[in-house]
Amino acid sequence: MNYQEFFRSELDGLRAEGNYREFAELERRRGQFPQANCYNGPGTVTVWCSNDYLGMGQHPAVLEAMHDALDTTGAGAGGTRNISGTTHAHVQLEAELADLHGKQSALLFTSGYVSNWAALGTLASRIPGLVVLSDALNHASMIEGIRHSRAQKVIWKHNDLTDLEAKLAALPANAPKMIAFESVYSMDGDIAPIKEICDLADKYGAMTYLDEVHAVGLYGPRGGGIAEREGLMDRLTVIEGTLGKAFGVMGGYIAASTELCDFVRSFASGFIFTTALPPCVAAGAAAAVRHLKHSSEERSQQQARVAEVRARLDAIGLPHIENPSHIIPVMVGDPVKCKYISDVLMRDHGIYIQPINYPTVPKGTERLRITPSPVHSAEDVERLIGALEKLWAQCQLARLPIAAQ
Amino acid sequence: MNYQEFFRSELDGLRAEGNYREFAELERRRGQFPQANCYNGPGTVTVWCSNDYLGMGQHPAVLEAMHDALDTTGAGAGGTRNISGTTHAHVQLEAELADLHGKQSALLFTSGYVSNWAALGTLASRIPGLVVLSDALNHASMIEGIRHSRAQKVIWKHNDLTDLEAKLAALPANAPKMIAFESVYSMDGDIAPIKEICDLADKYGAMTYLDEVHAVGLYGPRGGGIAEREGLMDRLTVIEGTLGKAFGVMGGYIAASTELCDFVRSFASGFIFTTALPPCVAAGAAAAVRHLKHSSEERSQQQARVAEVRARLDAIGLPHIENPSHIIPVMVGDPVKCKYISDVLMRDHGIYIQPINYPTVPKGTERLRITPSPVHSAEDVERLIGALEKLWAQCQLARLPIAAQ
Repeated sequence: MNYQEFFRSELDGLRAEGNYREFAELERRRGQFPQANCYNGPGTVTVWCSNDYLGMGQHPAVLEAMHDALDTTGAGAGGTRNISGTTHAHVQLEAELADLHGKQSALLFTSGYVSNWAALGTLASRIPGLVVLSDALNHASMIEGIRHSRAQKVIWKHNDLTDLEAKLAALPANAPKMIAFESVYSMDGDIAPIKEICDLADKYGAMTYLDEVHAVGLYGPRGGGIAEREGLMDRLTVIEGTLGKAFGVMGGYIAASTELCDFVRSFASGFIFTTALPPCVAAGAAAAVRHLKHSSEERSQQQARVAEVRARLDAIGLPHIENPSHIIPVMVGDPVKCKYISDVLMRDHGIYIQPINYPTVPKGTERLRITPSPVHSAEDVERLIGALEKLWAQCQLARLPIAAQ
Repeated sequence: MNYQEFFRSELDGLRAEGNYREFAELERRRGQFPQANCYNGPGTVTVWCSNDYLGMGQHPAVLEAMHDALDTTGAGAGGTRNISGTTHAHVQLEAELADLHGKQSALLFTSGYVSNWAALGTLASRIPGLVVLSDALNHASMIEGIRHSRAQKVIWKHNDLTDLEAKLAALPANAPKMIAFESVYSMDGDIAPIKEICDLADKYGAMTYLDEVHAVGLYGPRGGGIAEREGLMDRLTVIEGTLGKAFGVMGGYIAASTELCDFVRSFASGFIFTTALPPCVAAGAAAAVRHLKHSSEERSQQQARVAEVRARLDAIGLPHIENPSHIIPVMVGDPVKCKYISDVLMRDHGIYIQPINYPTVPKGTERLRITPSPVHSAEDVERLIGALEKLWAQCQLARLPIAAQ
């Protein structure tokens, strides 16, 4: 087999479909984010598609904690958690996260992806006969973890309680079960009916595994996520979160009972056989978590900015998915047009919004995913709306009747 | 099912076997490493089991690069590589790594574990009919990646060319194949016959995938690993490495042809759907790679320190695996004694060497894995040898006849 030729032809296939990805090469400007330098674009851009949802990646408390940790302990952890890589910063962060979610314990992973993959993979492969009931729109990391476990998987229709109950009822009453789902779904921004899912879990004897990566830091009086906001944290078996989005740094975790965390800690290959997060990363993340437990200012400002962008989009009739979260998906519905709009926004307007195409979203639902944050100014919003209005006209894309908004 | 009860009984099983892991909670002292504070031990300890093999985790060039990146760009990357998370620091580091290995391209991952899992998983699942020939002692991350791919896997006896050839010859001549192996094996410290494996790969039309995580930075005139030292880098299809051991920070990568890297970049779930490394981590790692391309001082000092510890162990007759690398496995052969020795070293001597028990090594081969580094002083060595000698007598463990050394 000509391996090189095979790679080339697969890549050509992506290009022909309009799904070949080109990365914008950025340098965020600390203190001026969402402004960034773009090395393969027009110089200066305003970033409108970051998952640093609250700008915590440039918060002085976070940066100070990271500088301090570098001065005190140096760069890396130097080993796996078991072999010299557990530092005081990791232990403190795990305590901070357990407290955030009102759980006995928390366990850190190198990323949110790894936390889902390793925790679900370990629970589902090690609990004899476990059946995982997985929401149809769960994130790739959850799907891969469940797949890896080779446990029986039952997919239920996205956020559909009737379908979930039918599937629970069809399983043997004594089979161990776990319902795996997310709170805020990243690409549509819709939110799961957590309480009702927990009710079904209780009725059918299932554990619950909730991914809150797009919610931690952002919802709830202390940033504990949607489950905190709705007073449901104690009803979830596992809450999974990330330190790389609203908390502005990197890493992932689960929060759960002491025994469950200890079980995953003891058996998960993806936890055991990997170098621990650098102490400075753990220290920065802990500072962000602590800050957002006590300050709601970032959350309120973000919500105000999101509402403002939505209202302005409505005023010019641009189609976006209505949802109760901070994510604004502006629908284009065509991969080539989506990339074109993104390219022109970047080139002519210095606005960076990555086009979201297949396989991240289904074909035909290509979109611009806009994430307003407290660090976007009124002027940033003005420029964004002006540019989108102009481009929508140029591309002859559908608008909604203004009155219907 | 009583889930909590299940977790408890599995953990009790580990405890009964002597395989329950307790983590030492450390705080490395920047500038004084291998000295560290131990929060759940005797206060100050000397770390003898770190994978920060050269002390680069406290090198001024690395720390300066990280401080600078924090000041310039802030904490996290804020997104996946595709959605706002590719920064100038990532692009520069990938160029540095491609150059290190004499390859056209390199691709970063959040960890070495993820790089093996995602790259092997993607190549083996996406190349139709690929058979992976995997060394029997490959790391968990490689095993999990191959397992995840569901490709046909053929395990060959560790470092055994005859067995590898027999297994290659038994496969259809036109079947696509990949030989996956490591250069330095972490737990025994032995080194693969890379040239001969490449010869077999050529003979049978196989790609080669070499994990150099315990070799990059440490071997070769520019720290390119064993393949660089032996002039073989151009014969390997993929070289995989880590930024979390000799380079002192965190992250993993592959270096290969432009097409292969682009293929993995375009199709690997574990690359696509995860937040990028913080720019400060990438900047720190790049500084370490650059430094070790031009300075051999750390490598020579490490090799001298390793030779000294080996000679001293021989002089007191302590059994350790002879190998041509920097890893010194002192054999205990019993999980309870191994943990006991480690506990007493920590408590009475302020020496931290994590016991290595099952499943990291096979039962009956429990060991203390010692990793001397340029930052260990002559006095550190003196204290280590004195303590081990005393403990070996106390535990009535076998010694080798001194003359036979």
